[in-house]
Amino acid sequence: MKPENVFRKIALICLVGALGVLMALAPVLAQQAADPLPSWKEGPAKQAIIRFVRLTTDQASPKFVPPEARVATFDQDGTLWVEHPMFTQMIYCLERVPAVVAKRPELKNVEPFKTVLSGNREAMAKLSMQDFEKVLAATLTGMTVGEFRAEVKKWLETARDPRWHRPYTELVYQPMLEVLKYLRANGYKTYIVTGGGQDFVRVYAEKVYGIPPEQVVGTASATKYGYDQSGRPILTKEPKLLLNDNDAGKPEGIHLIIGRRPDAAFGNSTGDRQMLEYTGAGNGARLMMLVLHDDGKREYAYGPAQGLPNTKVGTFTQALYDEAKKRGWVIISMKKDWKKIFAWE
Amino acid sequence: MKPENVFRKIALICLVGALGVLMALAPVLAQQAADPLPSWKEGPAKQAIIRFVRLTTDQASPKFVPPEARVATFDQDGTLWVEHPMFTQMIYCLERVPAVVAKRPELKNVEPFKTVLSGNREAMAKLSMQDFEKVLAATLTGMTVGEFRAEVKKWLETARDPRWHRPYTELVYQPMLEVLKYLRANGYKTYIVTGGGQDFVRVYAEKVYGIPPEQVVGTASATKYGYDQSGRPILTKEPKLLLNDNDAGKPEGIHLIIGRRPDAAFGNSTGDRQMLEYTGAGNGARLMMLVLHDDGKREYAYGPAQGLPNTKVGTFTQALYDEAKKRGWVIISMKKDWKKIFAWE
Repeated sequence: MKPENVFRKIALICLVGALGVLMALAPVLAQQAADPLPSWKEGPAKQAIIRFVRLTTDQASPKFVPPEARVATFDQDGTLWVEHPMFTQMIYCLERVPAVVAKRPELKNVEPFKTVLSGNREAMAKLSMQDFEKVLAATLTGMTVGEFRAEVKKWLETARDPRWHRPYTELVYQPMLEVLKYLRANGYKTYIVTGGGQDFVRVYAEKVYGIPPEQVVGTASATKYGYDQSGRPILTKEPKLLLNDNDAGKPEGIHLIIGRRPDAAFGNSTGDRQMLEYTGAGNGARLMMLVLHDDGKREYAYGPAQGLPNTKVGTFTQALYDEAKKRGWVIISMKKDWKKIFAWE
Repeated sequence: MKPENVFRKIALICLVGALGVLMALAPVLAQQAADPLPSWKEGPAKQAIIRFVRLTTDQASPKFVPPEARVATFDQDGTLWVEHPMFTQMIYCLERVPAVVAKRPELKNVEPFKTVLSGNREAMAKLSMQDFEKVLAATLTGMTVGEFRAEVKKWLETARDPRWHRPYTELVYQPMLEVLKYLRANGYKTYIVTGGGQDFVRVYAEKVYGIPPEQVVGTASATKYGYDQSGRPILTKEPKLLLNDNDAGKPEGIHLIIGRRPDAAFGNSTGDRQMLEYTGAGNGARLMMLVLHDDGKREYAYGPAQGLPNTKVGTFTQALYDEAKKRGWVIISMKKDWKKIFAWE
């Protein structure tokens, strides 16, 4: 081959190679240019999220946060998924009662189990907090962590919510899934910090939210190490509260499990106030957001902030609303800020 | 320019580019081929580590573990750094007593503070466990987590160990640093699971071991959320034990903080037995290792397994040694398996 032909061949190979690289990069480049929050309407809430990410991830920004220190925490019930008319874990506990009583027949005629077994919703609504705690203890403790995981997994596969008749794990807010993904794509570690049970949420958090078990902070009962009949090590869930991950328990749980102050925190009720305060007290850029359930048509409307109906589940008081305004926390209006609420709409 | 010259030019640019890529890759390729555990002598311990990593990270292996599920846990005292003649945190607590008494003069003539202040080592050695607990409570709790972090950081900068006259954070085992690095390079998340204080270890774990705060499981006191005089949120360390991360507390702490069973676990004393059992009870490839302190010349010799001298700090009983042999746990002999013990040797 003549030298010219050799060069011609090398040049051709190189050009084809370069074209290949460009074609391989095209979807990546296209994705980067696309809107990372397509279910959010343009407005102050969406702007606040995007501005925060730019401020903390641009190396030239004075508020740049090194990737290993980027932490964002999310309440779950009412912030990532539906919490009305009742917390999903509470529904699980009530629906588990027949199985528990079948194994422990002595509970059959004992309150509150008798009332729960009756199925009388009016009577159940009158049960006290102490009654509910007995139901929680009986259905969330006394088994190994493996048995509990298997029971919850099985229940989630068949249980359907009464309004949309869908699996509970489909009642997640699409705009919030986009925020989780957007933050992770920008180097943030995303954590759930929930008043719900840590072990309950761990069963589905990886699949539903892309959040692994080690990034779920939640209300936790103690476990007890021991051995089963064949001598195999087991961890049994004990009826002893280790961490009540509500209110002040949220920053306390964050310190225990994460050991860093979050840069961003998302909640929707008075139980999230301390987490947002604690997040806001850090240095550098901060993002604190509260979901306001003001869309009774597409989801539920409750507050009682801003004249919304009162509720026992996920209370968002006017005092919290006022504190948010005072401290520069951003309110997310489900009605005004979200184009769609669920992925399947 | 003639077409031949154009092609010649493109070919030249491409060849120079390719050469650049190769040169950039060279150190990476060289590193991959190099021994990942250079401070380890060839032998069963080193082989066990390398075999485990190959088995769990080779996609073709039936024991392949997906990267997100790869977890390795390490005891700290006696496994990653020196624990003799006394746990470093205990030295910190004893050396903090004068500062605590200066702030709380009412303790000056109260035991055990009086004895500790006297500096009489013989009298101090006779203090009871309850006495030591009073010292721990006074020096590890009652301040904000930020104040505690600052105090420990300051102490570590100036404190020197009595034998080598070096900062305590230099008394880490070079062969174990290589294991941490090797596992992380193969997608493992490395955790410390220590009987020592979680907040104490978090102060230096990132710098010394490359382990971030959220991957430190340790003995933890409760914290209490509140506000300082200017209304700023604070977390105060309370004298209330939340997690005793020793013995059975290690698998319990692992479940709370990690929520996954480790694939590999490293320890050196009876306090690590349950962590190794729990790790061993999982499916797939497992790696359980115990460091035996049998090198009194280069470090310390204690057991009392294998006729080594007895000790109160980091006891490795003959029963633990026998269980290790029975269950296929691998003993690491500091004397026979490690070429060097410290990086500065």
